[in-house]
Amino acid sequence: MVEALSEAERADALDGLPEWDYDEARDAILREFIFDDFNQAFGFMTQVALIAEKADHHPEWSNVYNRVTILLTTHDAGGLSPRDIEMAEAIEELVE
Amino acid sequence: MVEALSEAERADALDGLPEWDYDEARDAILREFIFDDFNQAFGFMTQVALIAEKADHHPEWSNVYNRVTILLTTHDAGGLSPRDIEMAEAIEELVE
Repeated sequence: MVEALSEAERADALDGLPEWDYDEARDAILREFIFDDFNQAFGFMTQVALIAEKADHHPEWSNVYNRVTILLTTHDAGGLSPRDIEMAEAIEELVE
Repeated sequence: MVEALSEAERADALDGLPEWDYDEARDAILREFIFDDFNQAFGFMTQVALIAEKADHHPEWSNVYNRVTILLTTHDAGGLSPRDIEMAEAIEELVE
């Protein structure tokens, strides 16, 4: 059972993810990624999909041509959990 | 140069795409697809991505676990064009 992060835990975790915004209404974090074109954007999505499937933790995401927006929250925990932070960190490693 | 469909042309085209809804505000068509799980949903997205890249015509789309929502419109035409109808028909062939 995964529990949602406390406010202090969240603040601490988000310090390490400066590119991610916190969505208070959803208790979620999100980031938009911009690539050169669709090919690059969907290539990135494919890498994220493999990570998500392996972790059994899936993003809410959208794509328009070269833009990908990823929102992470943990439905089972009713909000942001350590699983979202781990996923965001794994995604950051892909784009760094 | 692709031109947007007239109202009559649109009505005619949508007769052949009963699963797609018309979004008047966007002059776009959209459909939600529901799969068994993320694996199937993203597999479908990969097939659509290859079609989109080949046609150089890309959807606005989102995914949440087993659900994929696809919106098609033609920015260059300022609305729904024959390219969207062709894309929707190709997507339908994937899921039929």
